[in-house]
Amino acid sequence: MDNRKLIGVDLGGTTIKFGILTIEGEIQQKWSVRTNVLDEGSHIVPDIVHSINHHLDLYKMNRSQFVGIGMGTPGTVDRDKGTVVGAYNLNWKQTQPVKQQIEDGTGMPFALDNDANCAGLGERWKGAGNDGDDVVFITLGTGVGGGIIANHKLIHGVNGAGGEIGHIIVEPNGYQCTCGNHGCLEQYASATGVVHLAQDLAEEYEGSSRLKAMIDNGDEITSKIVFDLAKEDDYLANRVVDRVCYYLGLAVANISNTLNPEFAVIGGGVSAAGDFLLERVQKNFERFAFPTVRTSTRLKLAELGNDAGIIGAASLALQFKDKE
Amino acid sequence: MDNRKLIGVDLGGTTIKFGILTIEGEIQQKWSVRTNVLDEGSHIVPDIVHSINHHLDLYKMNRSQFVGIGMGTPGTVDRDKGTVVGAYNLNWKQTQPVKQQIEDGTGMPFALDNDANCAGLGERWKGAGNDGDDVVFITLGTGVGGGIIANHKLIHGVNGAGGEIGHIIVEPNGYQCTCGNHGCLEQYASATGVVHLAQDLAEEYEGSSRLKAMIDNGDEITSKIVFDLAKEDDYLANRVVDRVCYYLGLAVANISNTLNPEFAVIGGGVSAAGDFLLERVQKNFERFAFPTVRTSTRLKLAELGNDAGIIGAASLALQFKDKE
Repeated sequence: MDNRKLIGVDLGGTTIKFGILTIEGEIQQKWSVRTNVLDEGSHIVPDIVHSINHHLDLYKMNRSQFVGIGMGTPGTVDRDKGTVVGAYNLNWKQTQPVKQQIEDGTGMPFALDNDANCAGLGERWKGAGNDGDDVVFITLGTGVGGGIIANHKLIHGVNGAGGEIGHIIVEPNGYQCTCGNHGCLEQYASATGVVHLAQDLAEEYEGSSRLKAMIDNGDEITSKIVFDLAKEDDYLANRVVDRVCYYLGLAVANISNTLNPEFAVIGGGVSAAGDFLLERVQKNFERFAFPTVRTSTRLKLAELGNDAGIIGAASLALQFKDKE
Repeated sequence: MDNRKLIGVDLGGTTIKFGILTIEGEIQQKWSVRTNVLDEGSHIVPDIVHSINHHLDLYKMNRSQFVGIGMGTPGTVDRDKGTVVGAYNLNWKQTQPVKQQIEDGTGMPFALDNDANCAGLGERWKGAGNDGDDVVFITLGTGVGGGIIANHKLIHGVNGAGGEIGHIIVEPNGYQCTCGNHGCLEQYASATGVVHLAQDLAEEYEGSSRLKAMIDNGDEITSKIVFDLAKEDDYLANRVVDRVCYYLGLAVANISNTLNPEFAVIGGGVSAAGDFLLERVQKNFERFAFPTVRTSTRLKLAELGNDAGIIGAASLALQFKDKE
């Protein structure tokens, strides 16, 4: 039996999360440090190296007890070279030789992928994906990201843009997106998209609604407030949630008509609305899914929360298992 | 050097096409027979067995010179069991034990997949896909079908509906599809879809147009007539082609935003319109594709014509290459 461990790192704009896992994907230790984005993010990789080395000393573990390290990161990843570029929330404007620095600093093999792909791998492996061969993961946060697993492997595509689910067009001529196009899913189903929809629908709506009163009053609105008010039967909030779930259902159905995954898993902050969200997405999914897909692809909520990232990242290190 | 051959079979409702290929995918012999759909299609498999055996005798070849046989078929395929069900244009209503009958009848190993997947494999291997790892194939015929290759493997999904590109929703509340849903791509970009659009737009159009005159006169319209008239600057025909290319561009962009394939290859009868079609699809693709996808996914016309099916089918037999 192989008792070696994996290290998973989830690099985000605010915190860096770490985990030590068994090769079966069970988390044995977890810790996190603040992300220091000063000086063009030049402290980040040294901080990761230091934190790993420090914790191995703390736990009295040595390198031979580990298969390797996997990490999820924002930005555009070159998996072969092990570099990252364009991670603006880390202040990384230049190409960062992350793999080389971490391997040199820790003495362990290192692999990386983007953060949404890692979260998708985590949910597939130990969460809602039930270790299935074909799993689509959608994360609804500040933006909308995704990770697509088909035939048990992540789909990266020719230039790493595989899984850019947030930029599926759901409303031609719709809201303009940061990517320059109009009508991307991200503009309707991210936390900011929900708020944008709420503001627009409030302007047209004349009836009574606490959500409308808050918006008219200039209160700060969040996606959570919209969903909470919808659960309390606020009319306008329900119309907003209907629109969000329409676009999500359409996008998930079209992805599923293309790939027929076993599970389409919805995670991220907006998914905290739980079954209230899922049931309405499901209704729209059923309307737009091809009959075979309707009966064989299952929609589910993510199950791992914040741990998805470190679990999926750790799974990247499994590629080093049989290489000695 | 392995001098053995592959046999590829492309089973259609009208003809059954056969090819003997090198393991590099070069066609050395081709022939075809009429599909006899009488008696619930019960002659089809015996005819295939007879035709293969007959041609091996004719060419004085024996079984040991072959790696195996691959076949593309209409209907729903169970690849593990090697059975087909629901191939209505073959009159196959009951589950057909195709693999067992063909292996028993020819003495060679046999693999099968659906026809659009096989055509996709063919175009990927020896045609427009340039043997790439990530290729999406769309065929515009009586219906719209597809084959999706990611990480060098076909995507079947959990219940074999992977690649059902014809049922991506491009117009919520649009034309009703044979699948029961509304607004499937197939209703706009298949040969029948093009004609449907032409009839609808003709009804609204008041100006002068040969296409309108033909429709008003009750002449039989085909997709080829619509494209030919559009090339001759017929106003109405051009509006029809614009709509077809809008929906195709939207669907191809959304598939590409999801998978970022190296090539998106358009084939089938409607694609005979050539660059005239491709350029307009490209314009819409560029409007709807995520920037990274816009610059890395290339749209192309299919290159193999009718041979795509037998070439892709033959490639299925490569799985038997190292099994002796």
